[in-house]
Amino acid sequence: MQIDLNADLGEGFGPYRMGEDEAMMDIVSSANIACGYHAGDPVIMDKTVRLALRKGIDVGAHVGFPDLLGFGRRPIQADPLELAKYVLYQMGALAGIAKAAHARLTHMSFHGALGNMAAASYELAEPLVRAVADFDRDVVISVSTNTQIERAADKLGMRVANTFLADRAYDDAGNLVSRKLDGAVIKDRTAVLARVQQLLEDGTVTTHSGKRLKMTAQSILLHGDTPGAVELARTVRSAIETAGGRVVPLSRLIAP
Amino acid sequence: MQIDLNADLGEGFGPYRMGEDEAMMDIVSSANIACGYHAGDPVIMDKTVRLALRKGIDVGAHVGFPDLLGFGRRPIQADPLELAKYVLYQMGALAGIAKAAHARLTHMSFHGALGNMAAASYELAEPLVRAVADFDRDVVISVSTNTQIERAADKLGMRVANTFLADRAYDDAGNLVSRKLDGAVIKDRTAVLARVQQLLEDGTVTTHSGKRLKMTAQSILLHGDTPGAVELARTVRSAIETAGGRVVPLSRLIAP
Amino acid sequence: MQIDLNADLGEGFGPYRMGEDEAMMDIVSSANIACGYHAGDPVIMDKTVRLALRKGIDVGAHVGFPDLLGFGRRPIQADPLELAKYVLYQMGALAGIAKAAHARLTHMSFHGALGNMAAASYELAEPLVRAVADFDRDVVISVSTNTQIERAADKLGMRVANTFLADRAYDDAGNLVSRKLDGAVIKDRTAVLARVQQLLEDGTVTTHSGKRLKMTAQSILLHGDTPGAVELARTVRSAIETAGGRVVPLSRLIAP
Amino acid sequence: MQIDLNADLGEGFGPYRMGEDEAMMDIVSSANIACGYHAGDPVIMDKTVRLALRKGIDVGAHVGFPDLLGFGRRPIQADPLELAKYVLYQMGALAGIAKAAHARLTHMSFHGALGNMAAASYELAEPLVRAVADFDRDVVISVSTNTQIERAADKLGMRVANTFLADRAYDDAGNLVSRKLDGAVIKDRTAVLARVQQLLEDGTVTTHSGKRLKMTAQSILLHGDTPGAVELARTVRSAIETAGGRVVPLSRLIAP
Repeated sequence: MQIDLNADLGEGFGPYRMGEDEAMMDIVSSANIACGYHAGDPVIMDKTVRLALRKGIDVGAHVGFPDLLGFGRRPIQADPLELAKYVLYQMGALAGIAKAAHARLTHMSFHGALGNMAAASYELAEPLVRAVADFDRDVVISVSTNTQIERAADKLGMRVANTFLADRAYDDAGNLVSRKLDGAVIKDRTAVLARVQQLLEDGTVTTHSGKRLKMTAQSILLHGDTPGAVELARTVRSAIETAGGRVVPLSRLIAP
Repeated sequence: MQIDLNADLGEGFGPYRMGEDEAMMDIVSSANIACGYHAGDPVIMDKTVRLALRKGIDVGAHVGFPDLLGFGRRPIQADPLELAKYVLYQMGALAGIAKAAHARLTHMSFHGALGNMAAASYELAEPLVRAVADFDRDVVISVSTNTQIERAADKLGMRVANTFLADRAYDDAGNLVSRKLDGAVIKDRTAVLARVQQLLEDGTVTTHSGKRLKMTAQSILLHGDTPGAVELARTVRSAIETAGGRVVPLSRLIAP
Repeated sequence: MQIDLNADLGEGFGPYRMGEDEAMMDIVSSANIACGYHAGDPVIMDKTVRLALRKGIDVGAHVGFPDLLGFGRRPIQADPLELAKYVLYQMGALAGIAKAAHARLTHMSFHGALGNMAAASYELAEPLVRAVADFDRDVVISVSTNTQIERAADKLGMRVANTFLADRAYDDAGNLVSRKLDGAVIKDRTAVLARVQQLLEDGTVTTHSGKRLKMTAQSILLHGDTPGAVELARTVRSAIETAGGRVVPLSRLIAP
Repeated sequence: MQIDLNADLGEGFGPYRMGEDEAMMDIVSSANIACGYHAGDPVIMDKTVRLALRKGIDVGAHVGFPDLLGFGRRPIQADPLELAKYVLYQMGALAGIAKAAHARLTHMSFHGALGNMAAASYELAEPLVRAVADFDRDVVISVSTNTQIERAADKLGMRVANTFLADRAYDDAGNLVSRKLDGAVIKDRTAVLARVQQLLEDGTVTTHSGKRLKMTAQSILLHGDTPGAVELARTVRSAIETAGGRVVPLSRLIAP
């Protein structure tokens, strides 16, 4: 049993830092690196790419709204065709920095409000995914299952990695439960760990309503910016390895 | 006799436009496209790249300081190694947009204060040129002669195109005369045209002090953002063609 | 019969300009000045304030989303209480610049998407209007009739000026017709002029469906950023004066 | 013996925080609040102002270059008259937010590179100080002694508070020693404390070269963004109080 562990990294800006990137990179197998729109800047991007290379983990683009002030978490109603150009800009910028470090982008994911909006709207997801395809057909798109992003990727022949959010509740249709509802975010460590184990051993998740639902995942997303996050990430990794699983970067998991 | 004509294009931002890009693209053979730092945004970059493709002219990156408010014209004392990452970011971003349009970057130049500072300081020019080389060794660097940028490019084995500024005075050492001095900017159309003809026929420029100086140039920079600029550009092109010259993009002029 | 004419001015940024501010200021009696979020910068704000002073017209704040790239026209779903702080920031910044020029802010209006969203949502309008009140209870709020902004202003005891948009269609409830519908924007000069005359002489507007509706307005908004806009504005002013009306700044129209 | 303790606060942006503002506000008597240019945003500014009010400490503006990416620490060669408008913009923005919280700006200081450049150049300092005067003649300007800012303030009749930097070395002329030199920044706690005690008891500072120099100071600047900073600040305050001194906000120290 092989699975990827990934985390959103390089989310600082100028003098600011967020999360414990270096510690997380010892745990995960793929890095989703902010590209300067919702977070990140050229210097931080370069440092994060080079650190990822040294740790031997995959380098991917984490693409968001141009809203540093809101950390890309605020929905912006913009023309999908314009947003598609923002995707190209961000992926290109990171690829430029990666190229100078002899790295290449293996995957990408959509951050925050942009991700949520694209997950819910095919009209938005389609041009965004098309932009990724226009940039590089070999890039794997990290998505939650059942989203319009996944549908657009299938339609356009792009490979996806289904990503399991270990600390977020799913509904019976396999969608993430809105953060506004009680129990949407699972804060208890033991519960998070149990969910990872159930996914690995059983291929299922227990939904918000208590049902057992089939869940496919090639990747687990770990958060690094909350207190205790690194500790939890380490525990998740141990649990996988104890269960006989192997943590493997996306690029080696998803056949080209 | 073959020569390239180039112009700084795509210098709008959001709802704003600068210069008459479309008219200029009928005249020049190479476009230097702003990359979102001193001007430009993903949507404008995309439009400019696609327009350049349709007109059959070269696509290059015009790289500047992150200073939209000052249009990249204000010197910023920043760490050269950090500025080198800004170069990668901007070139990568434009390359990403170009890739989706099936174009590639053939050349680059430094804009405004960044260009002036690098022209004068090898300590700054070297890491910037190294960033270009790290990004793509095939990119031609557009420079004024006698600059530290040219010196760094020579040292690092990067190809340069010497660019003649038809409306700027040179001193006896072949350097641009400071804009603060009288006569630094040549506003008279006839004078500009005469300078272009002298360069083409004689390979010389008459300096600010009246000397005749040898001047090599593979390219002439035309401005598109002042009143009458398009008209002047058209006249320069006619003059070249009347003299039996041919206007040819940089990528076909400078052997790989 | 007295009425105010106002226009959105100072909408440039850095090297960019939008509209013909100086010409418009000879026509209008009140200036709505961008405050650096959707457009405008300190230098342009200062120039616009000083020009308004010289022309003897009112200085007001035009407050928008922090989205220079989208010119404040893209809805951003942000916390209303956070947006209220953005209102204070922008009004304060303009007031600071005005103070140095011995001017004071007489009025304010909400720009673009922020204005549209607040017009439709009391939940948003209330904290924004409260911010204006907290800043200065004497500031008049420029609004379209029937909006949640007007309702919030009434509730909080703030004075409003009802602004008539001469080139926009209204529905039978007195709301602006969505720009997406045919006929929402009235481009024909004669039609615009006829609407102004009907408002002045009859106190009514003919709605999108053809009904004659009562319409109160202390102010008419003129646009300055489209071709022929200045010409149209001049014609509107002439029509008012020919009809025996007087163009008077808001501060003299709305009793404190 | 009365003295003010002040610190640079509210230096976060969007999701980012810097320093331990709340802890520092229990120690200092005056807050220098970032205004959104080098750091700070409307939400953080509002929180910081309200916190300062609750703690009963002075609210001042900390004004810098528009360079979030470089935290205002990079010199930008811009037109002093344009920079003067940036000063008005920032002070106005903070004053707007303060007004809504029923606070007023008692003082201001220049941050980072803007402060260093103005300290060294009367040509820059004069228009900046004039902007402060145009904004509010009652605002006290926090400066190091012997700077061009102080000279400009004297010339324009503005009150200053001489601020002692307890952890920075001075030369024999009373200027700060460049950070590039060894010993410019004093990191040893005991040494910093000894310097404060010498200032309080003796009115002198021992210079970088070992001389004892007269030093007037109404205020001591404490840093809150380095490890152990809060602890050190607390110790400095204790030392003052143990020596029989009183920590008093600038507004009560400097007679109007």
